[in-house]
Amino acid sequence: MRQSKLFTRTIKEAPKDEASINAQLLIRAGFVDKLMAGVYSYLPLGLRVLDKIKNIIREEMNAIDGQEVYLPAMQPKELWDKTGRWDKLREVMFQFKGRGDSEIGIAATHEEVIVQILTKYVNSYKDLPLAVYQIQDKFRNEARAKSGLLRGREFSMKDLYSFHLTQEDFESYYNKSKIAYTNVYDRCGLTARITEAPGGDFTDKMTHEFQVFCESGEDTVIYCPECSFSQNEEIATVKAGAKCPMCSGTVKSTKSIEAGNIFPLETTYTDPLGLKVTNDKGEEVPVIMGCYGIGIGRVMGTVVEVLSDEKGMIWPEEIAPFRVHLLSLFTDEEKRVQADNVYEILKKNNIEVLYDDRLDARAGQKFSDSDLIGCPIRLVVSDKTVEKNGVEFKFRASDESEIIGFEEMIDKIRKPILTGTSRAEEMDKELNEF
Amino acid sequence: MRQSKLFTRTIKEAPKDEASINAQLLIRAGFVDKLMAGVYSYLPLGLRVLDKIKNIIREEMNAIDGQEVYLPAMQPKELWDKTGRWDKLREVMFQFKGRGDSEIGIAATHEEVIVQILTKYVNSYKDLPLAVYQIQDKFRNEARAKSGLLRGREFSMKDLYSFHLTQEDFESYYNKSKIAYTNVYDRCGLTARITEAPGGDFTDKMTHEFQVFCESGEDTVIYCPECSFSQNEEIATVKAGAKCPMCSGTVKSTKSIEAGNIFPLETTYTDPLGLKVTNDKGEEVPVIMGCYGIGIGRVMGTVVEVLSDEKGMIWPEEIAPFRVHLLSLFTDEEKRVQADNVYEILKKNNIEVLYDDRLDARAGQKFSDSDLIGCPIRLVVSDKTVEKNGVEFKFRASDESEIIGFEEMIDKIRKPILTGTSRAEEMDKELNEF
Repeated sequence: MRQSKLFTRTIKEAPKDEASINAQLLIRAGFVDKLMAGVYSYLPLGLRVLDKIKNIIREEMNAIDGQEVYLPAMQPKELWDKTGRWDKLREVMFQFKGRGDSEIGIAATHEEVIVQILTKYVNSYKDLPLAVYQIQDKFRNEARAKSGLLRGREFSMKDLYSFHLTQEDFESYYNKSKIAYTNVYDRCGLTARITEAPGGDFTDKMTHEFQVFCESGEDTVIYCPECSFSQNEEIATVKAGAKCPMCSGTVKSTKSIEAGNIFPLETTYTDPLGLKVTNDKGEEVPVIMGCYGIGIGRVMGTVVEVLSDEKGMIWPEEIAPFRVHLLSLFTDEEKRVQADNVYEILKKNNIEVLYDDRLDARAGQKFSDSDLIGCPIRLVVSDKTVEKNGVEFKFRASDESEIIGFEEMIDKIRKPILTGTSRAEEMDKELNEF
Repeated sequence: MRQSKLFTRTIKEAPKDEASINAQLLIRAGFVDKLMAGVYSYLPLGLRVLDKIKNIIREEMNAIDGQEVYLPAMQPKELWDKTGRWDKLREVMFQFKGRGDSEIGIAATHEEVIVQILTKYVNSYKDLPLAVYQIQDKFRNEARAKSGLLRGREFSMKDLYSFHLTQEDFESYYNKSKIAYTNVYDRCGLTARITEAPGGDFTDKMTHEFQVFCESGEDTVIYCPECSFSQNEEIATVKAGAKCPMCSGTVKSTKSIEAGNIFPLETTYTDPLGLKVTNDKGEEVPVIMGCYGIGIGRVMGTVVEVLSDEKGMIWPEEIAPFRVHLLSLFTDEEKRVQADNVYEILKKNNIEVLYDDRLDARAGQKFSDSDLIGCPIRLVVSDKTVEKNGVEFKFRASDESEIIGFEEMIDKIRKPILTGTSRAEEMDKELNEF
């Protein structure tokens, strides 16, 4: 895409009402715009990232047999009364009146709807196991919507629900979901630690969170650097400095962002909504349920918190708005043809490229915009590179650049990209491989 | 996809509370589920159709330089007070209180938000023209939500907004949008007639609707079969039987579904929200705006109303949930391997296929399910076809089938498909080419 056509542009100063790094950088780079506390518009660059995260999640959910659906935001009170959550979630769920006397809520979560739908289709053990997911916007009346995309009042979420005949089958799927989740975070450039956590409004059982260690996180995690022991402080059985309950290590404490969670729900929702099946003996038995959530905007915000430096964002290759940011340093159209040609070569090779073709912006502005926007690869075309019959090639995460020829350029662009040093990796140095 | 894995199944009887053909067929086929009046869940088959329509629209909007964004549903009262629409739309917009005393609405439309965002990025005539669009869910407190997907209280919509320096430039873009819209309907298998219409809550100017003639439509259109004259009855200057104001023909009246609309908004929203630019003389001038809407679910519902027969739906090839419905008539796994092989051949050739691999369903059930679901091509593998070393090939829209070999099968599947007779075409017979 030609940057001269893009309607957004970068902003030099961070907005004063945004404290979080993710909101500051995303707004400055024109990825998002704030409408009100916890409510953001996604602008073209930001939407590209959001959509790429969604597609990664889709692929990983399909890989564990998830069937995609799309459920409504609007919910009738009657349905939520069946599980008692109309009253229980009153603080968090936006509730109001529709036509007549009907009471309507905007869904903060979707257990009730999906279970009700399945009562129409599932009645035999042969219909199980079953996993259904959606990527949809959720609405929550959050009191603390102050962390940019990390805690929204309106936010895109993937929620998967699984249904099983036996506890063993549920547990096997629950473990499979941990691998799928780990794949999602890996592909988004994050290292997520599976952490025991409380169930909140959803369940009395122990649940699991995917925690990304980060100074700006709202959560505190007690973990062992020697093994996989990891507990949310809220339910931790040991304190930092204590002996690890799983090995001989000494546990530590860290700030962390909860970037996803999975919940065993047992029959909490299937029972009151009447989702039952007959087993192979012809007996009616309850259906065991799990739910599995990832906030898409939150993943995006977390990536910015963890993978950025003082100059701007550093997008991992799979979710970067564009793989390549091509800068023309020419100020007249005639000379710019030389950069236009490189742009055409890249497009012809199906390489996603943002092309800074602006004639009226100075080189310094283009370089700082490029660092702020954070595409993994920067290419520069200028008098200097043309003289050497090539382009200047640089990774966003590295300080070293080199001038290379056009053929080498394509090969080099296509190779997998290591994001390089990042806050996450600095913190991970003290962790074992998970 | 293997049908035995699909969690939905067909329902024999139409739901009693649904009067419209689209809701009846879509629910019976397991494409959607009704949560409450005007609010539907999209199940796997229905979501595939919805996503395909979205992608067609995306392609056509990108082709007229639309830049995709994603705007929030939640809206602050203060913003809508600036255009006076908080009060004006009170009947239609869901409005309620958030934390503290903040008043929040759920967007019925998005002019206010997009204009406010653009005030941050657009200030020179050089930034124009500009077109921004989104595909997002809208919420409207509809009194008459009784037509299935045709009139929802929650529905997915594409809304594009264009911004111009001059009236001439606006008009040129407005005309270009008519072509893009016509492409969208064509690709969705619909014939849409551009029809003059009133502006409703949006503008006092004349607007244009894309009307698909259909008995079940809520609108009435006065049109000329001899030329392109077409007016919504609400603002019609002549009555059926009258002489066409544009040619010598006699105008007729027909029921019709409004499947999209475009509005000249002049400076109705840019003025109160302060979106102005400096022109090439350095003077501050207002920005001229247009908006362009298509309800995605409504297009889907319209296709079902128009392209279906007594047996079920007949999807046009570009938006069919799958291109091919492959039926195995075998009832034991050992024999079914022969149909499995055809399934593998189709997948290897990147053909989208729904595979009815069920062992416990009878042939009659499979045939009627296939007609109901309405994939454009049906393939049957049975003892009879295996004997002849081929498959039975049939278009959904045709009654004739033939047994063909595997190589011919792939060629035939890849060819463009004519949907064949349909209600729309029957009605169109009396219309000139538009």
